[in-house]
Amino acid sequence: MSPVPNPTIVFTSNPQGVPVPGEHLVYRNDITIDPDHVPLNGGILTKTISLGVDPYLRNRMYYEYKPNTPFLGHGVGVVIRSENANYQVGQHIHTPDYPFAHYAVFGADANLRVLKEEGLPWTTYLGVLGLAGQTAWVGYRAFAHAKKGETIYVSTGAGVVGSVICQVAKAEGLRVISSAGSDSKVEFLKELGVDVAFNYKKQDIATVLKENGGVDIYWDNVGGKALETAMGCMNKWGRVIICGFISEYNLSPSEYHGNQSMLQVLVKNLTISGYVVFDALDKFGDFNFWSEVPTLVKEGKLKVKEQVSNNLEDSMQMLVDSLVGTNDGKGVIALK
Amino acid sequence: MSPVPNPTIVFTSNPQGVPVPGEHLVYRNDITIDPDHVPLNGGILTKTISLGVDPYLRNRMYYEYKPNTPFLGHGVGVVIRSENANYQVGQHIHTPDYPFAHYAVFGADANLRVLKEEGLPWTTYLGVLGLAGQTAWVGYRAFAHAKKGETIYVSTGAGVVGSVICQVAKAEGLRVISSAGSDSKVEFLKELGVDVAFNYKKQDIATVLKENGGVDIYWDNVGGKALETAMGCMNKWGRVIICGFISEYNLSPSEYHGNQSMLQVLVKNLTISGYVVFDALDKFGDFNFWSEVPTLVKEGKLKVKEQVSNNLEDSMQMLVDSLVGTNDGKGVIALK
Repeated sequence: MSPVPNPTIVFTSNPQGVPVPGEHLVYRNDITIDPDHVPLNGGILTKTISLGVDPYLRNRMYYEYKPNTPFLGHGVGVVIRSENANYQVGQHIHTPDYPFAHYAVFGADANLRVLKEEGLPWTTYLGVLGLAGQTAWVGYRAFAHAKKGETIYVSTGAGVVGSVICQVAKAEGLRVISSAGSDSKVEFLKELGVDVAFNYKKQDIATVLKENGGVDIYWDNVGGKALETAMGCMNKWGRVIICGFISEYNLSPSEYHGNQSMLQVLVKNLTISGYVVFDALDKFGDFNFWSEVPTLVKEGKLKVKEQVSNNLEDSMQMLVDSLVGTNDGKGVIALK
Repeated sequence: MSPVPNPTIVFTSNPQGVPVPGEHLVYRNDITIDPDHVPLNGGILTKTISLGVDPYLRNRMYYEYKPNTPFLGHGVGVVIRSENANYQVGQHIHTPDYPFAHYAVFGADANLRVLKEEGLPWTTYLGVLGLAGQTAWVGYRAFAHAKKGETIYVSTGAGVVGSVICQVAKAEGLRVISSAGSDSKVEFLKELGVDVAFNYKKQDIATVLKENGGVDIYWDNVGGKALETAMGCMNKWGRVIICGFISEYNLSPSEYHGNQSMLQVLVKNLTISGYVVFDALDKFGDFNFWSEVPTLVKEGKLKVKEQVSNNLEDSMQMLVDSLVGTNDGKGVIALK
């Protein structure tokens, strides 16, 4: 085979604020690759199957990526050449460091996960069966200490983490309140069986939470003002679980929100637990994630809303949408 | 016996800020009582033995006390007349609602604790064997999850709660860092065996904590800026325990300190637990407080610094001193 196009998203520079497609991330369709002859040096060549567009990638632009290199994120590819005995042609591999490109070469020391064929769409490994799903599953088991009949508030119920929490909590007999930033997302929350779903841009969060008798468990992906507000609505012995803090990832420390609800921790006997999923997996294990969650997904008991494009170029705008909340489901690129 | 003087501290009004002796609290030595004939109506008459001057009384001025009634606090008295079969003449009783006066009458329905004679000074029942000691003992057992070799920072180590925590943690093999607001208090911390004792008015808290390798457990009685600072110095998987929030008791909610360290909860996998001792006792029990702590006090293994006066009138200034931190030990009134 002679060289073929290898369209690639290239990271050029870390923006102030939200990235601009074509400026901080550039779609390059002039790059080529020769699948038969590209040197592998003990590594593998993959054809890309799917790529996940996650808001946390904005963070990696800040601290990790080098200018004029391929943009990286969670991806699944199929092995089409291999010089590494650990990876066979035809196998599907997953890595959080997958280049946003149609083909990818991984060196001899790349740490890739070979996916078990479970009859599930490969995109699920970017969300409910990926880091986000593990964040939800492990954090809930480790920190929620949920009791049937309690009320949980999930501030980001339409995201992957939030939607898993809503469904797991509902299945355990909790009353689930969840908010999102668009009516379409609120409709999805209702499909998930959320008891009280509302658009926080149209309804006051504190009013909704108080009208519903307060909150025993607050699932926080947002931090900042949202956290402060929810802390003001907790019931006695409430638990706050912080697995994300999207409101502050792009701020400097002096701009962080000053939380004036800390006295609530004392007077309401609250517990606040934060965690990063890698650390939690190390400390608590995965609570049977791989033996239980794929089955729940197959049975339709864990749903996630995806917004799929077959065009790699769309990933740039998808990232922007996920950062400003105008997305409608988790952004996924599915290539042939 | 004919009427005798019954000097009494009378609460007149709730101040803005720190109370002024003679204005918001008035020492009245013109009040009398006839011990032989004062009607008991099924209650008891006690002679006051000791009274505790606690900063939290400032809170009760705000929400509880009625103008022109005796000031109330933790006290111990000896029964000198009784019309209630539950209390015998000669017994010592304890209550958090003891009038600051030389004699007190408690009605038929008063809920008083009869103290076991354990050969300990009666003042200990106002501190290390009272609410403060229980706060420390129960909170540490329920929330610290301490492991030998870890570092604990106690921000108010010279107070009753803090000094108990310092000693219990030290006995369990923790490294103890503690701060106080005067050199004399720092000396007391050293007597307790604290590893790193410092005057926070002279040394920067964050610098000291970072120089000492960070903090695994932060014991917080203060809240506000102190809490924010300590949260910035926690080690991974650190625990923050909030049993008091003295920095905000006298503020309105809009004046509460805005804590900008909340992102630390996520990135450091922190847990913050708050509690009110009554609630914690209900939920967790007392962790053998009464079978273990009096013995530790008798054996000198739990020490508390007291500032004793035999003059009831001094209690007013003692309260002020405890609120602004110019006290030197827990204020106690010991009467004959």
